[in-house]
Amino acid sequence: MSSLRGRGLSVWVLGEKVQEFADHPVITPSINAMAETYRLAETDPELATVHSKLTGSRVHRFAHVCESVEDVVAQSRMQRRLGQLTGTCFQRCVGMDAINAGYTTTFRIDSAHGTAYHDRFKEFIAHVQSYNLVVGGAMTDPKGDRSRGPSAQDDPDMFVRIVDRRDGGIVLRGAKTHQTGSLNAHWLVVMPGQRLSDKDAAYAVSAAVPVDDPKLTYVLGRQSCDTRSLEGDVDVGNARYGGQEVTIVFDDVWIPDSRVFMDGEYEFAADLVERFTAYHRRSYVCKAGVGDVLVGAAAEIAAMNGVDRASHVKDKLVESTFLNETIFGTGFAASMAAKPTPAGNYEPDTLLANVCKHHVTKLPYEIARLAQDLAGGLVATMPSDADFENDQVGPVLKKYLKAAPGVHPDDRRRILRLVENMTMGRNAVGYLAESMHGAGSPAAQRVVINKLAQFAEKRAFARRLAGCSACPQSPSSTWTSPPPPPPRN
Amino acid sequence: MSSLRGRGLSVWVLGEKVQEFADHPVITPSINAMAETYRLAETDPELATVHSKLTGSRVHRFAHVCESVEDVVAQSRMQRRLGQLTGTCFQRCVGMDAINAGYTTTFRIDSAHGTAYHDRFKEFIAHVQSYNLVVGGAMTDPKGDRSRGPSAQDDPDMFVRIVDRRDGGIVLRGAKTHQTGSLNAHWLVVMPGQRLSDKDAAYAVSAAVPVDDPKLTYVLGRQSCDTRSLEGDVDVGNARYGGQEVTIVFDDVWIPDSRVFMDGEYEFAADLVERFTAYHRRSYVCKAGVGDVLVGAAAEIAAMNGVDRASHVKDKLVESTFLNETIFGTGFAASMAAKPTPAGNYEPDTLLANVCKHHVTKLPYEIARLAQDLAGGLVATMPSDADFENDQVGPVLKKYLKAAPGVHPDDRRRILRLVENMTMGRNAVGYLAESMHGAGSPAAQRVVINKLAQFAEKRAFARRLAGCSACPQSPSSTWTSPPPPPPRN
Amino acid sequence: MSSLRGRGLSVWVLGEKVQEFADHPVITPSINAMAETYRLAETDPELATVHSKLTGSRVHRFAHVCESVEDVVAQSRMQRRLGQLTGTCFQRCVGMDAINAGYTTTFRIDSAHGTAYHDRFKEFIAHVQSYNLVVGGAMTDPKGDRSRGPSAQDDPDMFVRIVDRRDGGIVLRGAKTHQTGSLNAHWLVVMPGQRLSDKDAAYAVSAAVPVDDPKLTYVLGRQSCDTRSLEGDVDVGNARYGGQEVTIVFDDVWIPDSRVFMDGEYEFAADLVERFTAYHRRSYVCKAGVGDVLVGAAAEIAAMNGVDRASHVKDKLVESTFLNETIFGTGFAASMAAKPTPAGNYEPDTLLANVCKHHVTKLPYEIARLAQDLAGGLVATMPSDADFENDQVGPVLKKYLKAAPGVHPDDRRRILRLVENMTMGRNAVGYLAESMHGAGSPAAQRVVINKLAQFAEKRAFARRLAGCSACPQSPSSTWTSPPPPPPRN
Amino acid sequence: MSSLRGRGLSVWVLGEKVQEFADHPVITPSINAMAETYRLAETDPELATVHSKLTGSRVHRFAHVCESVEDVVAQSRMQRRLGQLTGTCFQRCVGMDAINAGYTTTFRIDSAHGTAYHDRFKEFIAHVQSYNLVVGGAMTDPKGDRSRGPSAQDDPDMFVRIVDRRDGGIVLRGAKTHQTGSLNAHWLVVMPGQRLSDKDAAYAVSAAVPVDDPKLTYVLGRQSCDTRSLEGDVDVGNARYGGQEVTIVFDDVWIPDSRVFMDGEYEFAADLVERFTAYHRRSYVCKAGVGDVLVGAAAEIAAMNGVDRASHVKDKLVESTFLNETIFGTGFAASMAAKPTPAGNYEPDTLLANVCKHHVTKLPYEIARLAQDLAGGLVATMPSDADFENDQVGPVLKKYLKAAPGVHPDDRRRILRLVENMTMGRNAVGYLAESMHGAGSPAAQRVVINKLAQFAEKRAFARRLAGCSACPQSPSSTWTSPPPPPPRN
Repeated sequence: MSSLRGRGLSVWVLGEKVQEFADHPVITPSINAMAETYRLAETDPELATVHSKLTGSRVHRFAHVCESVEDVVAQSRMQRRLGQLTGTCFQRCVGMDAINAGYTTTFRIDSAHGTAYHDRFKEFIAHVQSYNLVVGGAMTDPKGDRSRGPSAQDDPDMFVRIVDRRDGGIVLRGAKTHQTGSLNAHWLVVMPGQRLSDKDAAYAVSAAVPVDDPKLTYVLGRQSCDTRSLEGDVDVGNARYGGQEVTIVFDDVWIPDSRVFMDGEYEFAADLVERFTAYHRRSYVCKAGVGDVLVGAAAEIAAMNGVDRASHVKDKLVESTFLNETIFGTGFAASMAAKPTPAGNYEPDTLLANVCKHHVTKLPYEIARLAQDLAGGLVATMPSDADFENDQVGPVLKKYLKAAPGVHPDDRRRILRLVENMTMGRNAVGYLAESMHGAGSPAAQRVVINKLAQFAEKRAFARRLAGCSACPQSPSSTWTSPPPPPPRN
Repeated sequence: MSSLRGRGLSVWVLGEKVQEFADHPVITPSINAMAETYRLAETDPELATVHSKLTGSRVHRFAHVCESVEDVVAQSRMQRRLGQLTGTCFQRCVGMDAINAGYTTTFRIDSAHGTAYHDRFKEFIAHVQSYNLVVGGAMTDPKGDRSRGPSAQDDPDMFVRIVDRRDGGIVLRGAKTHQTGSLNAHWLVVMPGQRLSDKDAAYAVSAAVPVDDPKLTYVLGRQSCDTRSLEGDVDVGNARYGGQEVTIVFDDVWIPDSRVFMDGEYEFAADLVERFTAYHRRSYVCKAGVGDVLVGAAAEIAAMNGVDRASHVKDKLVESTFLNETIFGTGFAASMAAKPTPAGNYEPDTLLANVCKHHVTKLPYEIARLAQDLAGGLVATMPSDADFENDQVGPVLKKYLKAAPGVHPDDRRRILRLVENMTMGRNAVGYLAESMHGAGSPAAQRVVINKLAQFAEKRAFARRLAGCSACPQSPSSTWTSPPPPPPRN
Repeated sequence: MSSLRGRGLSVWVLGEKVQEFADHPVITPSINAMAETYRLAETDPELATVHSKLTGSRVHRFAHVCESVEDVVAQSRMQRRLGQLTGTCFQRCVGMDAINAGYTTTFRIDSAHGTAYHDRFKEFIAHVQSYNLVVGGAMTDPKGDRSRGPSAQDDPDMFVRIVDRRDGGIVLRGAKTHQTGSLNAHWLVVMPGQRLSDKDAAYAVSAAVPVDDPKLTYVLGRQSCDTRSLEGDVDVGNARYGGQEVTIVFDDVWIPDSRVFMDGEYEFAADLVERFTAYHRRSYVCKAGVGDVLVGAAAEIAAMNGVDRASHVKDKLVESTFLNETIFGTGFAASMAAKPTPAGNYEPDTLLANVCKHHVTKLPYEIARLAQDLAGGLVATMPSDADFENDQVGPVLKKYLKAAPGVHPDDRRRILRLVENMTMGRNAVGYLAESMHGAGSPAAQRVVINKLAQFAEKRAFARRLAGCSACPQSPSSTWTSPPPPPPRN
Repeated sequence: MSSLRGRGLSVWVLGEKVQEFADHPVITPSINAMAETYRLAETDPELATVHSKLTGSRVHRFAHVCESVEDVVAQSRMQRRLGQLTGTCFQRCVGMDAINAGYTTTFRIDSAHGTAYHDRFKEFIAHVQSYNLVVGGAMTDPKGDRSRGPSAQDDPDMFVRIVDRRDGGIVLRGAKTHQTGSLNAHWLVVMPGQRLSDKDAAYAVSAAVPVDDPKLTYVLGRQSCDTRSLEGDVDVGNARYGGQEVTIVFDDVWIPDSRVFMDGEYEFAADLVERFTAYHRRSYVCKAGVGDVLVGAAAEIAAMNGVDRASHVKDKLVESTFLNETIFGTGFAASMAAKPTPAGNYEPDTLLANVCKHHVTKLPYEIARLAQDLAGGLVATMPSDADFENDQVGPVLKKYLKAAPGVHPDDRRRILRLVENMTMGRNAVGYLAESMHGAGSPAAQRVVINKLAQFAEKRAFARRLAGCSACPQSPSSTWTSPPPPPPRN
């Protein structure tokens, strides 16, 4: 990832400003995870690349705007695969989902206002595709006092906003939090994070900013067990791959108008957010891939412990699989039910996408619980790698770590640490906490499910069958779900 | 449904042999439910009919062998729709799934044995399509002592078997239980219900039998509150529609060889069962349609009670919707991931089909529980319709049944009875007990999930990330899920 | 139960006024269930009787005011036992809990207002004890438009109220719904059902009314499968025992002041309701006894089916037991943590009582689901008893109902019908719907749990451990839970 | 805790042998947690001390053998309290439960074999009481190949065993794993960990060993985020308190016969284990106290975020409380239902103790999930304390951490770190993984529940009500649950 080096970013890690973040051992695993997205394009080009109408050539799927149902579905497949390969967050979905959502919203703004955002945005995407770049989507603001909107805060900087206009561009101030993998990106697409009112016009802004803009400051978020990466590989559990979350401070960042995709059209903020989450909540099928790893680790440690034939062990592995496939099935269904937007690109089914994400806020926690169950108490009481490798105490520790015949104690340690990593350690951030809050917390999905539940139609079904007065005999001609099959050419 | 009358079937209902079952008030609702499948073909031909290669003309979708992914998906959409329209089991899925499964298995038997079952079966299907007939699938045997297989039973009749061969045909004896809607069918397709061994060759039989064969006896199963249909309409809850389950006794039924589709090829019994359940476990998306009715009834009664703005009420409706869409989403995904079989027809994804059905064994019970919660105690304590309509006591009862302004007490009664009907009454059989056991009980799905979980691949993912010895760097080239996108022409 | 006969009550059943309700076959099972409470006093006097300070003699425990922690605990034990013996609601808890709650509230009203309710109430209880009578507690009003309180309704009768005062007494008008077992009682204790304001003074009334007051009209509530009691015994499932719910209309019932226990002291309405529910929500440990029956039925049918050694079967029985004991354990804990009231009697722990009842709104549904799972599909498809007993078709049905060796088909039928009875039939009302709504619906418990959760203390614990500013070093001297051990003499 | 210093233990921490473990910053928090048990004896002597018959004086409750139901109950209250005060495992329950269980088992062995273990054991306890010492219970062996028993292992040391007898004592070899707080103890009571056969006589050994025996080696287990204790206090989340788990190697430890409490009586190994777990599974009510902290942290962070009035937030706090009180209620019930043993001490109800522990393997995970939900994404993405305290980047980070008015950003950080600590960090070991495996993994509780479920009695209840043949009319005179009220003096 040579393109990440030498950019002189202002990056803070554990209280220190680092010269070259890409070489920081706490950050390297996150780069490795993202790098797998590039590697997959080489090892499985059918899955990770696609022909783009925008550039007329084959591009990385993460940089692609969906042109068909198949494109939407292939994203789900690619995401599960990368979850399997990294066991963590590979950080490239936000940007993919941001360019897909922005593609439609810019089209709609232009239709309403006669602006020219859509062409600008297509140019930006073409640039990204041509150079095979990584885009980060910068949506979540610090929010300050949550009972008040952006323009009603005591401190107006609690949401990113336009503070100035000069030299054919705008100037942004504020911060974005929970920014996944931003250091590993080349561009950030700034977006508003919620519905805005007419008083919030200065906050209705979307624009592309180069990650190495000197007015940006990055502070790495702590993750559970983050400093184990400084110690060695075994105790990390998954030494090669990890996630990355940063806080980004925008200290009056200037952006030329040519990279601005929304500027004051506050009434389209909700449109952008809703389209983004339709894609992004379904993107959490990646957790089915990460779940494949954890279910595999649970199956492996059960076998190593010599108890894999116990009926309760088998049952817990079946349960884990059932839950994991529920994530996949609902996300896959959302993709399969994709429909074209006014702009011509394809968008997943919003209801099913929210059903998928809502499961993701619960089921990984249960799969993690079952994995800790199958791992046994050692997952939380095992001595350190340094103890095992110590000349004096190591040999006796290894003697007592022996379990089922043929299992090397070191392999057993490694699988135990992997379970720890995914259920309590560094990648528990990606598998659990991010599953909870990424793309919106559980309450956000319930709001959408409530909105799309078609209760009026359902009540009509019930009234008709109960024989209530004033009942339609053929209710619900407007029933929209189940979605129609994908259109064919 | 004139075609159901005058057939002289030997039908027992509540201890009496009935002359014309179609006129029996306990049975009529089940006929109405099935009749909706015909009505839908008129009101929404796009959904309920399809062009068939076998006959070259447009046929009912329930009689169709899937020729594409779209065909498989359209089944799911049609099933949900009919669930919405009937609020119960419309009894036509078993036959549909049986002809789809048999289509493939007969092809495979012929390939292995040089037999001619496939052409016979296609002829049978063409007949069914041409006359728009209803097929019942007769699979479940009484089973006797479940610790022993068919040929090891004390009484060899515990599974349907060939007891004789004469006049160019075979003679079947035994019984089939839990037969959904058989009285409303024109043909029964007999199938074995489980994996068989070489000792069970006489039990490895599949054949088509006309429902009005004089050697068949039918006994109607009781359903909760079945006799309310004899009383009037209000207290039934859903007076128009109901399900139907019968026990069928085969008292030496002769079948010509031309309608026999398996005869002794015991090693293909499991193939037939597994293919059938791949279709049928996903067919339970119909319960998402029935769930739409119950969620609608819950929303309606909450509004009638005047509490629909309470946050806990809204939350329970959202939860019900979330659960209901989980059924739909996983079943829909199974259909969307359909793949062609060796015979050229299309078959749903088996793993996702089992995930769907496994949810169906749980989630309707929770939706029913939430509906009882929202209904309030009246769902179980309300006086009878006869009391409400009585001149003396009726008026005061109606006075005290008033709730939110503008709600007619009679409508409120009807919705309450509908909730009772679906959670404790007659259609609780279809919505709950059948959801539990139809297409296989929960344990059966867990066996399949275990088989398809690809634990070896998952363990390899985990070993690679943990850095265990002897780990592949690119595991799981054989990983088969997520399924590839449907092939395009 | 001769004392129930010849009272000339005005009782409506299924649209007809019955002369002697006690002989009505739909009602008889509910009388049998209540009669078990008397029988238990003979067979296990230690459990069902107790020495009363009020009368100085041994009285029925259901008529007793708790004088110690042991008394409160013994109620729980008696309730579970009667659940085991009847498999349904035995209808005597409401009255028991009403006299215990009223004992305290009358004392408190007198303390505040100088009234004489407490002595009157003690006299009433002594009368009940002396004659070993059954008391029904009449609390729930029809409520009308639930967004408005009693005095704000369009129709002022939507809550029972005082409409007149004459002849040294008060006159009550209105109705009470969901009245459990009132026909089998001798006295009704009228109580308000919710917190009242000063405008609701006419509704703040508690008084004892004889069940055979001529101004009372009773209408029996329908229950699932209620009319099976008219058919015979097998298909009922539990032919001997059932519950009873009635609507009672108060058509200007005159009550002498000597039997009035609250008259306008609206500010004590909530006190009475809260004390009553503290007892009554914990009284639902009876469902652990009913659950013992259903878990037993599930274990029995699994054995009859010959699958009781399957690991998933054993696991489901363990799970059912675990859930059932959770109901018992939390209710038992509430009783064990009883504390004396200002009036000197003993009252259960309110928080734990609500935890118990809240489990009761969920866990019986899951136990019922598991029982249907273990029962197999026959629970919903088995022919009627009349079919099995029919000379023509019966023998072949019995042939095919054979299962594990040594199991009589008739016994198997009976157990299957018992499972139907408890999960979909008549006693599903008692085991499920009543578990949901009796003593308050789930939302009501959550209100109480919220109120008693001591969040301020919990937040102080957290702030102290996190090292927040302004934190007490020894927080929560006011922490009241876990309750202290019961005081000893 | 001066008594812990200067003992010259051989302790390994993170690969290094430490001179004075008590000063090691990773270990100090565990000492603080244990020290709270001493402090409580001073601040609340009623709760944490008790009069002992053995010594005739007031002793620490953790060193006490229960002489009454009140004693058993007071343990539960003390445990919850200490959970509230430390937010983690205070490590003193194992020893308490070991001396209570051993008290009975030694009595029973003596009765059977004429040995003198009981008096020895009482002397040992009196010593512990007199000097107010901490006892660790050493039960869990490495177990090696779990498909084989102790004497059938390839390496006979996989379970602690007697390898020699000399100088009036025995010599032990082997290891004990998952040893909670052993470094902070003065004595270890070695016990077998499972049912043994006659071939395992050498493994049937119980004895007291001083923690500072020179033949013992201790290796500290790693915990998630353990090294944050080396960094400072804020990011630890709970800087003062933590748990401690060690592996102990017995390298031929000599023990005089006077401290041996079982020596070859293999048939009593199960008795000791079962009695120990009856106490210890109920001792997990401590997690209700830890849960009080986490629920408090969730309530606090919700308030700090300014969203505490949202209905879903309140509902999640109610749900957390409901679950937390379920742990407490079932454990408290187990203690309340305590019964005397043959030795005269009091023992909790085994069934309810297992119900409690089984909930503990699940509910803390759900409470933790809800806490992460309420905490918001910052719980996993917040920069380090060093960043916040850095002169350059700290001020801007603090600016953007502001939330609800009046909340200091530093306090908000601390609460977020506490939630991280308890759900993913160091005390997630105590609150989650230890809840899963301590006192036996979930499968172990299910074995006990199955054994005590009284299925035969339950089946008799069902058969009687269903009217099956050969049914007792008054079943279950042997029904033992609900337990009788505690005996009174």
